[in-house]
Amino acid sequence: MDSVEKRIEAAVDALLEDYHHGRDIDRIDLFRHPDKETVIDIVQKLHRIVYPGYSRDKNYRIYNAKHNLSMLMEDVLFNLSRQAAIVLGDEGQGEALCLDFFSRLPAIRALIQTDLQAAFDGDPAATGKEEIILSYPGLFAITVYRLAHGLYELGLPMIPRMMTEYAHSITGIDIHPGAKVGAAFFIDHGTGIVVGETAVIGENVKIYQGVTLGGLSTRGGQSLRGKRRHPTIEDNVTIYANATILGGDTVIGKGCVIGSSVFITESVAPGTTVTNQSQQLQFKTHGK
Amino acid sequence: MDSVEKRIEAAVDALLEDYHHGRDIDRIDLFRHPDKETVIDIVQKLHRIVYPGYSRDKNYRIYNAKHNLSMLMEDVLFNLSRQAAIVLGDEGQGEALCLDFFSRLPAIRALIQTDLQAAFDGDPAATGKEEIILSYPGLFAITVYRLAHGLYELGLPMIPRMMTEYAHSITGIDIHPGAKVGAAFFIDHGTGIVVGETAVIGENVKIYQGVTLGGLSTRGGQSLRGKRRHPTIEDNVTIYANATILGGDTVIGKGCVIGSSVFITESVAPGTTVTNQSQQLQFKTHGK
Amino acid sequence: MDSVEKRIEAAVDALLEDYHHGRDIDRIDLFRHPDKETVIDIVQKLHRIVYPGYSRDKNYRIYNAKHNLSMLMEDVLFNLSRQAAIVLGDEGQGEALCLDFFSRLPAIRALIQTDLQAAFDGDPAATGKEEIILSYPGLFAITVYRLAHGLYELGLPMIPRMMTEYAHSITGIDIHPGAKVGAAFFIDHGTGIVVGETAVIGENVKIYQGVTLGGLSTRGGQSLRGKRRHPTIEDNVTIYANATILGGDTVIGKGCVIGSSVFITESVAPGTTVTNQSQQLQFKTHGK
Amino acid sequence: MDSVEKRIEAAVDALLEDYHHGRDIDRIDLFRHPDKETVIDIVQKLHRIVYPGYSRDKNYRIYNAKHNLSMLMEDVLFNLSRQAAIVLGDEGQGEALCLDFFSRLPAIRALIQTDLQAAFDGDPAATGKEEIILSYPGLFAITVYRLAHGLYELGLPMIPRMMTEYAHSITGIDIHPGAKVGAAFFIDHGTGIVVGETAVIGENVKIYQGVTLGGLSTRGGQSLRGKRRHPTIEDNVTIYANATILGGDTVIGKGCVIGSSVFITESVAPGTTVTNQSQQLQFKTHGK
Amino acid sequence: MDSVEKRIEAAVDALLEDYHHGRDIDRIDLFRHPDKETVIDIVQKLHRIVYPGYSRDKNYRIYNAKHNLSMLMEDVLFNLSRQAAIVLGDEGQGEALCLDFFSRLPAIRALIQTDLQAAFDGDPAATGKEEIILSYPGLFAITVYRLAHGLYELGLPMIPRMMTEYAHSITGIDIHPGAKVGAAFFIDHGTGIVVGETAVIGENVKIYQGVTLGGLSTRGGQSLRGKRRHPTIEDNVTIYANATILGGDTVIGKGCVIGSSVFITESVAPGTTVTNQSQQLQFKTHGK
Amino acid sequence: MDSVEKRIEAAVDALLEDYHHGRDIDRIDLFRHPDKETVIDIVQKLHRIVYPGYSRDKNYRIYNAKHNLSMLMEDVLFNLSRQAAIVLGDEGQGEALCLDFFSRLPAIRALIQTDLQAAFDGDPAATGKEEIILSYPGLFAITVYRLAHGLYELGLPMIPRMMTEYAHSITGIDIHPGAKVGAAFFIDHGTGIVVGETAVIGENVKIYQGVTLGGLSTRGGQSLRGKRRHPTIEDNVTIYANATILGGDTVIGKGCVIGSSVFITESVAPGTTVTNQSQQLQFKTHGK
Repeated sequence: MDSVEKRIEAAVDALLEDYHHGRDIDRIDLFRHPDKETVIDIVQKLHRIVYPGYSRDKNYRIYNAKHNLSMLMEDVLFNLSRQAAIVLGDEGQGEALCLDFFSRLPAIRALIQTDLQAAFDGDPAATGKEEIILSYPGLFAITVYRLAHGLYELGLPMIPRMMTEYAHSITGIDIHPGAKVGAAFFIDHGTGIVVGETAVIGENVKIYQGVTLGGLSTRGGQSLRGKRRHPTIEDNVTIYANATILGGDTVIGKGCVIGSSVFITESVAPGTTVTNQSQQLQFKTHGK
Repeated sequence: MDSVEKRIEAAVDALLEDYHHGRDIDRIDLFRHPDKETVIDIVQKLHRIVYPGYSRDKNYRIYNAKHNLSMLMEDVLFNLSRQAAIVLGDEGQGEALCLDFFSRLPAIRALIQTDLQAAFDGDPAATGKEEIILSYPGLFAITVYRLAHGLYELGLPMIPRMMTEYAHSITGIDIHPGAKVGAAFFIDHGTGIVVGETAVIGENVKIYQGVTLGGLSTRGGQSLRGKRRHPTIEDNVTIYANATILGGDTVIGKGCVIGSSVFITESVAPGTTVTNQSQQLQFKTHGK
Repeated sequence: MDSVEKRIEAAVDALLEDYHHGRDIDRIDLFRHPDKETVIDIVQKLHRIVYPGYSRDKNYRIYNAKHNLSMLMEDVLFNLSRQAAIVLGDEGQGEALCLDFFSRLPAIRALIQTDLQAAFDGDPAATGKEEIILSYPGLFAITVYRLAHGLYELGLPMIPRMMTEYAHSITGIDIHPGAKVGAAFFIDHGTGIVVGETAVIGENVKIYQGVTLGGLSTRGGQSLRGKRRHPTIEDNVTIYANATILGGDTVIGKGCVIGSSVFITESVAPGTTVTNQSQQLQFKTHGK
Repeated sequence: MDSVEKRIEAAVDALLEDYHHGRDIDRIDLFRHPDKETVIDIVQKLHRIVYPGYSRDKNYRIYNAKHNLSMLMEDVLFNLSRQAAIVLGDEGQGEALCLDFFSRLPAIRALIQTDLQAAFDGDPAATGKEEIILSYPGLFAITVYRLAHGLYELGLPMIPRMMTEYAHSITGIDIHPGAKVGAAFFIDHGTGIVVGETAVIGENVKIYQGVTLGGLSTRGGQSLRGKRRHPTIEDNVTIYANATILGGDTVIGKGCVIGSSVFITESVAPGTTVTNQSQQLQFKTHGK
Repeated sequence: MDSVEKRIEAAVDALLEDYHHGRDIDRIDLFRHPDKETVIDIVQKLHRIVYPGYSRDKNYRIYNAKHNLSMLMEDVLFNLSRQAAIVLGDEGQGEALCLDFFSRLPAIRALIQTDLQAAFDGDPAATGKEEIILSYPGLFAITVYRLAHGLYELGLPMIPRMMTEYAHSITGIDIHPGAKVGAAFFIDHGTGIVVGETAVIGENVKIYQGVTLGGLSTRGGQSLRGKRRHPTIEDNVTIYANATILGGDTVIGKGCVIGSSVFITESVAPGTTVTNQSQQLQFKTHGK
Repeated sequence: MDSVEKRIEAAVDALLEDYHHGRDIDRIDLFRHPDKETVIDIVQKLHRIVYPGYSRDKNYRIYNAKHNLSMLMEDVLFNLSRQAAIVLGDEGQGEALCLDFFSRLPAIRALIQTDLQAAFDGDPAATGKEEIILSYPGLFAITVYRLAHGLYELGLPMIPRMMTEYAHSITGIDIHPGAKVGAAFFIDHGTGIVVGETAVIGENVKIYQGVTLGGLSTRGGQSLRGKRRHPTIEDNVTIYANATILGGDTVIGKGCVIGSSVFITESVAPGTTVTNQSQQLQFKTHGK
């Protein structure tokens, strides 16, 4: 037993020394970075604000929706302001940014309603919009993206990315908060979708699982920061499962249909259907 | 400070007004839809009923398995009945449906045992069945699907979809509860798998990560509701990673092997191995 | 009402009888297998030990990092020892293994620092290393893998797999704890990645979402256990999205670049860029 | 082990049979009586409503006191209505009674402010009113009594008694909700105080620990129900520790001072100081 | 800041050294004594077993009381056995004792029903038996005493005392588990009651707040252990508030009535009413 | 329903207006007073520091008592400093005071050990010191008093009173933190004990339930603040149940024994036994 204590002591001492190498993973100044659990809590409360009738709240009747909403918003304001202040390094700026964000919520909700309608119109398996709000990962990921994008546009660093990463962990859909996405965006199934930071997506776009809207190469690393690296998808485009579209100069024109598993690195004219005809399937009978 | 209060007040008022547009996202009549957290709780308890020895329960010895099981089933009955009553709009029907479902549990468990055996037989990395039950996402997703499918077959709307979406969020495997799946179904790794609502899968089928059993096109939208849109996979078929099989008329015959990344929209005769020979790899030496 | 009670009673009795078939899913000897929630708790605490400054701890200032670390390590030691004892069937061996593992933590941390640096160098969207630690699923999955691999190498069964499966459920990245991975490993986006049990990965390797490093076939099932089935990826290789590399004899030589969606089952010489030129895109104008 | 199971089974069966004796303790019709924990929760929330600045609430700044108060009151309304409906056997009546009660809260608070002032004036050990609100059991018991009495007067059975019993368990002060107590009531120390159901207390009364305002005899049992059994204490009376005053006809006139440990069963004229002179202390020196 | 760390370090070191004085308060061998919170939990669960209809359980309908009871009893058996094993130093003996205790529960419940009836008969303020079960501290203290006494009689050390001390902390009624108490025991109000370890109380006894049934002197200290030190109260005795009855030879005969604040150290013949006539009240008019 | 909303709204508005009367109960400036729950938490943690082996801690073995103690003390330091800073209005002063307090803990523990010994020596019902630590309210109240007194002596306002009031609510023993109490203080049973702010108690003093060491009169109210109002009890005095000793000039000399229910307002010479001989019991036979 004594020797166990000594070995733990030794392990602790070894790690403590290890913490003093000055590497990035050795930083121990707590409280100076945003807190993941708080960010997740903020996302969940914003979600309730967006869909007022779908949250599971305390088990009592709400006599007055206004008070409920106010409490929710005060809560978000308090916590988001504090998190924002951490990354902005300025208390007042955090609160100001949140208030600006709040004033944009109606516009964000208007967009989300178009996304919901698009999901209903686009999926024959949907039995109703309620089902979509309650169980479709695509709509969840888009909702979180739209909220995070609102904060990203106001100049808030790091936190929007934590918000969309939360949605990513739930849905497998990775939309960078810097991407620009038009109304009525529909994602079906969704797992494995990547939408890069500088992607631009028009209205009425549909994408399926496994689609990547990515960069041609990241060998440039940090030198590429801020440059346009991801494609433009114009209005009314449909992109089927596992298609890959890469490059900051790539523009998929209005109304295009991109087939499943197509790999594209150059622009496509509007009104084009692109499919991959190269597949030479070999059929060998091996007996059943 | 005063002005902060006023700005919150204004934001709250703006949102309250925004809630009165009569859109789908504006509904605030609480309690009329199933509750996501309750549905998840039901799934977890059904999982414990299916695998009686693998749940982590209270930290005391169970002297009498019957009492434990009874409590669990009463709990599920109470909660599932209530959720079912919400979507069915009829209290008594909810309870009756649950009781029917309970009587099917032994048959469901018999299928799950075949799935477990298939996973063990199919994966050399598995060190034992215990490991599979405890850590394989494929078996988890199939288990939840089989339970949800049982409820789907009894005519319960919305809730089965919420159940499989829960499994989807954990595993990246999206099996619609409407799909029909035979015994000894094995999913390896799993992330990115999609099995559509009207798919039919035979016995001893194995599928790998990224496989889609989908619809050819969803442009028909809601008009396609209820029509067969997804493929049939007959007994003893293996489908390797990232293969895509689409269409309600597509039948993959008994014993077929579908290669990785193959894209199929037409039927394949039984006993056929399908691989994609078209790949023209270009090798450029660029120096190391 | 009475009849409801009788029906529940009947359902319970039917299930109890069903539990007596002696199948794998019928085992009810509790406590003899590791507990999933405890394993997840251990992972989270090890994560805090690896990144001492990034955990969200009690809301008070820590005057003395040593005590905090000690408590954390004692906690992990206690719980991990107990879980290890369950799978090893030997209390003392469990504790000894944990202590060995602790002594390897500095080396593991040194590797993780290289992974962090690689992520920063490789992703222009990263605004800083803090953001990566806080929100990149790739680094999270690699960190958990490195910890699990440390335990795997010490001969601990089952638990390392439960650890990486936890990371898989969060990130969609499935790295088997048996794989060997060199320094500075970078995974971008990540969803849908599979790295098999016997894969060997060199230093400075980058892989993107949807990449599989898998086995050629698993038809051999349990007979293949322990044999080399997954590829070798040498230093400085980049593998783009959705590429598939299979087989235990497949070696991707130093500095290779494997293009998106390429399918490889044979070795590639060092310094080679492999792309798929076969794609014959068909463009049909259908009007916008 | 088997025999343990059998013995438990036997004990369970014995108890189940024991439950069928039809005695009062055998009732098992759940949900038909008020719930103790809910009643305690209601008391705590009403306490927060009475002292708006002294509650420890969520750890965020409250921008708008109105919303906070509204939520609190809705919560109390919902829960108290439900509990009241149980004892009244009528849902609507429960809600109506609560709303009546709410309208009386300002009057109740006005009385409580006089109690607070009396405590401050009466206790030289009090360093401020804040200390009294935060730590004086007397004020706590009086506050709960005043709230419970408000409900008692509106005809609510059982629940007011549960409320004062909660205060009794915390403070050792047992004031029946049926008692009538004037403004500026001060209880010092308090443990062991009993104020009976039909007691009437005027304004500016002070009582100390161990004082009983009780009934002469309870041999009449239930036949005495509703009759005046406890004394009247007029304005400005002080009653020192452990004094006992009994009987429904006993009136302690205005301004009386009742000495410590005095036992009184007959009325005392206004302006009288009553002390017990009978004590014949015997002093025996026994060496130190 | 550094100096704060040093001062804490110094304080910690000082205390650690202080722990090595070998005094009773310095023992740090954890886990060898019963756990207070577990004992309280056991009391609460036994209370639910005694009053099956009055517990607030999970919020779902219980279809089958037997399963509920079994779970509760298994829970108590597991925890009580473990606590008993700690104080008895023998695992098996702990379980055996618990099982014996369980078989006595019906007899204990039969006594408690008589206590309930006595409370109802004796208190005109009681509006029903439900109110008594839900809010009378006297019945609560007696119930806990009867359970603790059952364990005390079976030879369980320390834990019965912890049980009655829990009731004491809630009610101010301190009944030693060693006391012997006949049927139909009624305690009104209760705060400040002390019933000593070797007291013997007959049937139909009523006592009021502040009554002590104590020892004449405890100067003998530990040398008196096990000797009769507390009085005998025969059937049908009533003891009014604050009366003190002391001594192991003191017998209060059948049917006696002991007046308020009487001090008795010698036996009283059956059928005697004892009151204190010595009180010489002095009335001074001091003006109002 | 509408009318319910309106009535709530009206009730809320009435209360909000009621909050604006500027009375003491109307203060709504949150966060400026100490928090009761935090103070209770501090008491419980200090209790664990005093009795290191008796706390129920996390359910794992503590390999290193030092780390555990350090964490506990840091926790107390953080929270107590913050609470102290609130009442002192100075952050730094709060921390300094806590550190001073910490340095006094060994001396406080030395006193508590004497209290424990005194309890064991004085109570034949005690089966061991463990039982006393685990279940005697007297020792608990004294322990909390000694801790609170340490803080009181350092000039901390309000919080020491909240600490002893917490003990009062648990035990019915009310010792003001300002009282001075010598070593080996023993309280038996305890309920109803009051020890006033300026009382001075010597060594080896024993007191029983219901004893008051109080002030002669508090009519002077706040004008008496700081003056000596409560008695002096010299070494080796025993005070039996319900005795009352009042007045700042009253000195009970060394070795005195004060009988049960004696009422004393003047000094008693050392070595005196005081009993009340005045009791004229009247015995009336009323038949059994």
